[in-house]
Amino acid sequence: MSDTNKPAVVLISGGLDSATVAAIAKERGFDIHALTFLYGQRHAIEIQAARKVAKAIGAIRHIVQTIDLRAFGGSALTDDIAVPKAASVEQIQEGIPITYVPARNTIFLSFALAYAEVVSASDIFIGVSAVDFSGYPDCRPEFIEAFQTLASLATKAGADGSKMKIHAPLVNMSKSETIHEGTRLGVDYSITHSCYDPNETGRACGSCDSCLLRRMGFQEAGQDDPVTSSCPGPD
Amino acid sequence: MSDTNKPAVVLISGGLDSATVAAIAKERGFDIHALTFLYGQRHAIEIQAARKVAKAIGAIRHIVQTIDLRAFGGSALTDDIAVPKAASVEQIQEGIPITYVPARNTIFLSFALAYAEVVSASDIFIGVSAVDFSGYPDCRPEFIEAFQTLASLATKAGADGSKMKIHAPLVNMSKSETIHEGTRLGVDYSITHSCYDPNETGRACGSCDSCLLRRMGFQEAGQDDPVTSSCPGPD
Repeated sequence: MSDTNKPAVVLISGGLDSATVAAIAKERGFDIHALTFLYGQRHAIEIQAARKVAKAIGAIRHIVQTIDLRAFGGSALTDDIAVPKAASVEQIQEGIPITYVPARNTIFLSFALAYAEVVSASDIFIGVSAVDFSGYPDCRPEFIEAFQTLASLATKAGADGSKMKIHAPLVNMSKSETIHEGTRLGVDYSITHSCYDPNETGRACGSCDSCLLRRMGFQEAGQDDPVTSSCPGPD
Repeated sequence: MSDTNKPAVVLISGGLDSATVAAIAKERGFDIHALTFLYGQRHAIEIQAARKVAKAIGAIRHIVQTIDLRAFGGSALTDDIAVPKAASVEQIQEGIPITYVPARNTIFLSFALAYAEVVSASDIFIGVSAVDFSGYPDCRPEFIEAFQTLASLATKAGADGSKMKIHAPLVNMSKSETIHEGTRLGVDYSITHSCYDPNETGRACGSCDSCLLRRMGFQEAGQDDPVTSSCPGPD
């Protein structure tokens, strides 16, 4: 193994998906430049989880970028709109939910591109999935492919013919497959946070889409969620 | 004319290109939602110009978004790197200059996309030009086209089949053509700011790429620059 691995930028939210993606990037031999956003989300507590995840994976640098998506609003995560709750995954409403934050992944990947360009990385990792997901348009494979095309054109290296690669290793994985993969890689899910609507002490609500998908994932994976308080369920 | 025009998001930097683009968007009948960035640029004085431009054009809202591109650095505009100076446009160095800010236009357009989605706009205007420009990769027509493809896939409307249009009306215009067009539309260039490296009182340096291109533009257009102090030249 060389002293210097290839650099990669990894988007880390503090949730279980991005923690798994960071472990995948590490296994593939990349030095990790972690990037997290304080964007006006109601669950800003996830930043603390992101810091733990970046530290646990041995990121060589972790930038937390503050941006203000509340200036635009339009989402239950960044505006005074209630986060929808349900009793089970089956009861999650069809269509693109109100927790969708307009252009969030486009914005996150754009900053990752700036970071990548400055550290001479040609690889960016993001933990989107189009399987057990909330129906967000910017989690689909065709979105990731379009961003990859853009990324190569947008940069100095791209102008010289180099390609930027956007890795979305979970895009075709179910939540339980992600958990299996992360467990194999030794991810400590006890430090991750998933809930969109935690209470003041950081305790998960247990009934938002993100809590429901997390609980289903651990159930299907046949594992206990180490964050025992994270998804206690509505009852 | 209807009471309610179609909304468009217009990126306004405070420079002469974006002031012209705002006038073009207005002429095409759009209600203007202006968007400007305080991104850590050394010429933050351009924000004042952007506010004047947005007001002059009658923008119905103007959001100034603060982001920190200094966290990444890598540019003379956002890092402790000297801005290159030259005596004339002919002496501007070949290639992508150190004033290039990694992924800046990708980031700006991503926020514009969020703004557009929230106000139900399908149109975004940006003042890039690939003629008299500094050689930035993210000013080329192929970059704009790639972003347009991405934008339609990235959004809620796009998921339903709607298209987002990225307008770059200056992309094939020289600086003097831009000035002619803006003059026809009544743009007040006296309120714009172009210099990358103004002194403490806001006076332009006269010899950065942006000053040189501006001066050349007004000369070729056969007009006096109303900002008489903006490009006094190096002598």
